[in-house]
Amino acid sequence: MSAAHDERDELGEALQHMGAAARASARSLARADKAQRATALHAMSKAVLAHKDEILEANARDMEAALNAGASPAFADRLKLAPGSVDAMASGIETVAWLPDPVGLVEDEWVRPNGLKIARVRVPIGVIGIIYESRPNVTADAAALCVKSGNAAILRGGSEAMGSARAIRTAIAEGLERADLPPEAVQLVPTSDRMIVGRMLAGLDGTIDVIIPRGGKSLIARVQKDARVPVLAHLDGNCHVYVDKAADPKKAVEIVLNSKMRRVSVCGAAETLLVDAAGAGHLLRPLVVALLDAGCEVRGDRITQTIDPRVEGAVDDDWYTEFLDAIIAVKIVDGVEGAVKHIAKYGSSHTDSIVTEDKLAAEIFLREVDSAVVLHNASTQFADGAEFGFGAEIGIATGRLHARGPVGARELTTFKYVVKGDGQTRP
Amino acid sequence: MSAAHDERDELGEALQHMGAAARASARSLARADKAQRATALHAMSKAVLAHKDEILEANARDMEAALNAGASPAFADRLKLAPGSVDAMASGIETVAWLPDPVGLVEDEWVRPNGLKIARVRVPIGVIGIIYESRPNVTADAAALCVKSGNAAILRGGSEAMGSARAIRTAIAEGLERADLPPEAVQLVPTSDRMIVGRMLAGLDGTIDVIIPRGGKSLIARVQKDARVPVLAHLDGNCHVYVDKAADPKKAVEIVLNSKMRRVSVCGAAETLLVDAAGAGHLLRPLVVALLDAGCEVRGDRITQTIDPRVEGAVDDDWYTEFLDAIIAVKIVDGVEGAVKHIAKYGSSHTDSIVTEDKLAAEIFLREVDSAVVLHNASTQFADGAEFGFGAEIGIATGRLHARGPVGARELTTFKYVVKGDGQTRP
Repeated sequence: MSAAHDERDELGEALQHMGAAARASARSLARADKAQRATALHAMSKAVLAHKDEILEANARDMEAALNAGASPAFADRLKLAPGSVDAMASGIETVAWLPDPVGLVEDEWVRPNGLKIARVRVPIGVIGIIYESRPNVTADAAALCVKSGNAAILRGGSEAMGSARAIRTAIAEGLERADLPPEAVQLVPTSDRMIVGRMLAGLDGTIDVIIPRGGKSLIARVQKDARVPVLAHLDGNCHVYVDKAADPKKAVEIVLNSKMRRVSVCGAAETLLVDAAGAGHLLRPLVVALLDAGCEVRGDRITQTIDPRVEGAVDDDWYTEFLDAIIAVKIVDGVEGAVKHIAKYGSSHTDSIVTEDKLAAEIFLREVDSAVVLHNASTQFADGAEFGFGAEIGIATGRLHARGPVGARELTTFKYVVKGDGQTRP
Repeated sequence: MSAAHDERDELGEALQHMGAAARASARSLARADKAQRATALHAMSKAVLAHKDEILEANARDMEAALNAGASPAFADRLKLAPGSVDAMASGIETVAWLPDPVGLVEDEWVRPNGLKIARVRVPIGVIGIIYESRPNVTADAAALCVKSGNAAILRGGSEAMGSARAIRTAIAEGLERADLPPEAVQLVPTSDRMIVGRMLAGLDGTIDVIIPRGGKSLIARVQKDARVPVLAHLDGNCHVYVDKAADPKKAVEIVLNSKMRRVSVCGAAETLLVDAAGAGHLLRPLVVALLDAGCEVRGDRITQTIDPRVEGAVDDDWYTEFLDAIIAVKIVDGVEGAVKHIAKYGSSHTDSIVTEDKLAAEIFLREVDSAVVLHNASTQFADGAEFGFGAEIGIATGRLHARGPVGARELTTFKYVVKGDGQTRP
């Protein structure tokens, strides 16, 4: 017991030290100019490639241990790094290096009647805590976006991926040092002890400014429940495609199939198809048959059930459900207003798309559907940082404040007001 | 007990009903265009003026009850509405009506290689819960900024100001109805029952998107501890003025006096004066003497204590303290770097000012001091929504995410991504 207690104390001290080092590094990063941060990113990318063998070896050891411990094939798939994955990681960091720099951007400026010049300028948030599970590439993606946006990162990866994460972090630290930036700007917690998550959620003695959890719903729920600092997280993605009476039938089929079936397990996958009653006569059958033929289970309302014997009956719960599987709920609605109403009631404000050639219907949908991402004539699966041009992705936020939708480097910044006067005092 | 229980149930139901009505009203407001929301604000302003007598009578009754209950003069002062205060309230709403509309603003747009057009557009947050104390004008200010930004508001005022708040809210509801907007867009909770605060902090069954507390530190601390929804709040304002060796001595004295003494109880009041060692020889004495002569207690470091026998000795705690009183801590620091270091250690990231004619020193200070508001040659007391041109003020945020510094209509909005395609699917 006493030895365990000593270990706890040591771990606590190590964490405290990490927090202080992260805060100091955040100041160095915020002070560094664009060129220095870009140099660091290029060096990080090169170092990841240079350490490819070590990273792959560490990953092979993680894989072996996980498989010996009886990991599921899906779990092993998330954990595994193919040689190409390391190249992709390096080129991801490189992509981030070339993106526009969000730090120092003047978003707005104005002059007050008393002559004060006020500017709203984007600045780094400070220290970002990232809690994730088994995907090793998160280590590289998160590090790249944090350095890009001038933030320090404290990373807590999954226990099974600890070796891989350590090898990747070693390369990243080397890159930072080459650009004369402190390697502590990106730190990895020393063990996967659950106590660490608790300390991070409490803000690590005031050194963590925001927590970003990445992983399954139980992780996100725990983080949202226990965090004493702000959280940017992804909860539910109950996404809709609404096919309007004025839809191009070919586009409609392509977009619906892609939205549902490209990858069924991503948060931007469509879960419900809404079809305009006024267009159902010619649109519903091709849509439903295409889905069924693609191997998708269709749960339809009464009208949809008449289309094909393979269609099953939908219950009210289906409209709320994020299937994350080859299952779709299908309902006839009364035009764009009916679609907006359905989405307001059952949706999760994540990503919703309208298919129509009617510009006015599209405008109504885009304005009135209150989701992080609204699309016109495009697949819901575009709800993704890379597809938005953000480079590596740190996740998708389903909250309403600060960040919404794909979280890129910009959302890892906040702002300050810079006020310039020539001696003004307030009357 | 049973009667009390029934009352509780009734209150619970009333709150649930309020939440649902707020959510529905938020949709109406978000759908309303600029002109309709502006019309509502003009009508709200007129209605406040038209109901001036009722508002003043209700306030007189609140005052009488508060004084009978032994309210302090400071408390009574915050509660009291002079006839001019109602005019100021009405013209405050009018000012907000004429401000630029933040809703629908396209902050950024870009085209992806696949032809998708992505725009980041500002949209209302939804339903804002505001928990405040005795100042009746908060009712009008909060209502105006919420309507301006397309949000519904649920207001919980202090029990002593309930009558005043009700009279103001009645006028506001009348204004909303004149513009064909639902009067439930601005609601006031029916009693000051403490249970209501708890329900609001829990998000009122998912109907409140953000809580803004306005009042003393114990209220803010409770809200930050218990809220299960995001909070925009003001905690500490330990503000600094740094007088650089290259400061204009006259501006320095004026800015320091104004920053500290204009009003000592506001969050933007300076609490610590930092003086550059290289300029202390000619700058320190006039600054310290001016402060002492203005009736300010000066707590200085060793050098400052040699200036005047009235200077008391400062202890380490003084550098951390938000005095909110005619007391200032004074310290000699080693140039702008020393000032930045001191503020990083002791400051609260609220508002800090540099006085100098040296542009480079100013640039370093403005960039490296990590506060919501940084000023050059201007008083810290400008940290205020009205002074920033935001019209009525809903508070100052000391958190780092979403809003920082004075919170205006813009910070009561969030954004969504509007993506326009012509049939794109994701490979």
